[in-house]
Amino acid sequence: MPYILPVTGYKSAGFLASLSYDVEGSAVTNILFNKVEYDYGNNYNPATGVYTVPRDGLYLIHARVYGRDNYASHYIRVNGNIVTSAAEHDPGHLYQSASTSIVLHLLSGHEVAVDPSFTGSVDGWTNYMTTSFGAMLLYAD
Amino acid sequence: MPYILPVTGYKSAGFLASLSYDVEGSAVTNILFNKVEYDYGNNYNPATGVYTVPRDGLYLIHARVYGRDNYASHYIRVNGNIVTSAAEHDPGHLYQSASTSIVLHLLSGHEVAVDPSFTGSVDGWTNYMTTSFGAMLLYAD
Amino acid sequence: MPYILPVTGYKSAGFLASLSYDVEGSAVTNILFNKVEYDYGNNYNPATGVYTVPRDGLYLIHARVYGRDNYASHYIRVNGNIVTSAAEHDPGHLYQSASTSIVLHLLSGHEVAVDPSFTGSVDGWTNYMTTSFGAMLLYAD
Repeated sequence: MPYILPVTGYKSAGFLASLSYDVEGSAVTNILFNKVEYDYGNNYNPATGVYTVPRDGLYLIHARVYGRDNYASHYIRVNGNIVTSAAEHDPGHLYQSASTSIVLHLLSGHEVAVDPSFTGSVDGWTNYMTTSFGAMLLYAD
Repeated sequence: MPYILPVTGYKSAGFLASLSYDVEGSAVTNILFNKVEYDYGNNYNPATGVYTVPRDGLYLIHARVYGRDNYASHYIRVNGNIVTSAAEHDPGHLYQSASTSIVLHLLSGHEVAVDPSFTGSVDGWTNYMTTSFGAMLLYAD
Repeated sequence: MPYILPVTGYKSAGFLASLSYDVEGSAVTNILFNKVEYDYGNNYNPATGVYTVPRDGLYLIHARVYGRDNYASHYIRVNGNIVTSAAEHDPGHLYQSASTSIVLHLLSGHEVAVDPSFTGSVDGWTNYMTTSFGAMLLYAD
């Protein structure tokens, strides 16, 4: 089947980062996705875990939290406010993951972050991504 | 790293809606995602929960059902027929969510809907999205 | 609200395939997503379960494994190496699904595959997709 590929010659705004070490113990209030896989535009800060939206538009937000203490629940926040959440808890098995994938309309300067909504350990790994967070601009306004 | 942002000046077809109240009790056969977050083209009907595809193309369908009675399983339907499903049931914990993210080729006039495949309560909320349903046109034919 | 739809006249690279039969028993090391839903460019091989990336770019990878023996955990592999994983295990309920949705930067010739990371049965179905795997080029380099 013949097909024509998308317009080339540009990179969209977007990033992907993962957690490269285990976050142990209680009171996990934030994950710092410290390992940057890619970041077109340098809008993600691995020291804070915050993605600053470079311009108004529709963004695919994709995240996965991989827990080690029965939980994997998490929030997606914009400017500190929760905008969506995922819930995953299995008391019978330690390792769980929960994923979020949603297209949000975001404005330039918005700060997007992901944080677990439970007390427990979060799995990170250097060899591959278990816990990750990304955004990709689909359409600019 | 320099980068060029996507073509601007248009809005794609697509919508996002959420459930703003709890759907309690048994025999949940449909969720009406009543709160429209955005709807480019006005193709989503919050009174019926149906998104009517505006033109042929590839659409990202993203949904998350957040249950309060151990279940979060759900179906994605096109013209009433199930096209894909997610299964989530934990008898040991009440709150669960399951998410679906899939790129479907849909035709103009197709009616897309999400409904839970279990009997139980579904979580909705006014402050942020727990249960949501969206579609975004990625490529028109 | 008036809106202008995306540029038409092309098809992106991308595919979607599903499993149309149950994979029973132990030592499931690979799922062959045997039923091709669409494949623009014919880059997916249903005999091997491998998607060969047609050109450098950013791809949305979306997969869901639906297990019948308490597990739904799986890996996404590029050239045989695990790049990301999802974990789902509920000892109290047989049917579970786990989904992955992530935007990866892939290079021409990369081989992408999904396989379960557990020993047990995987659900397939002819009527609708329970276990599926897809990729969609969002931006070419």
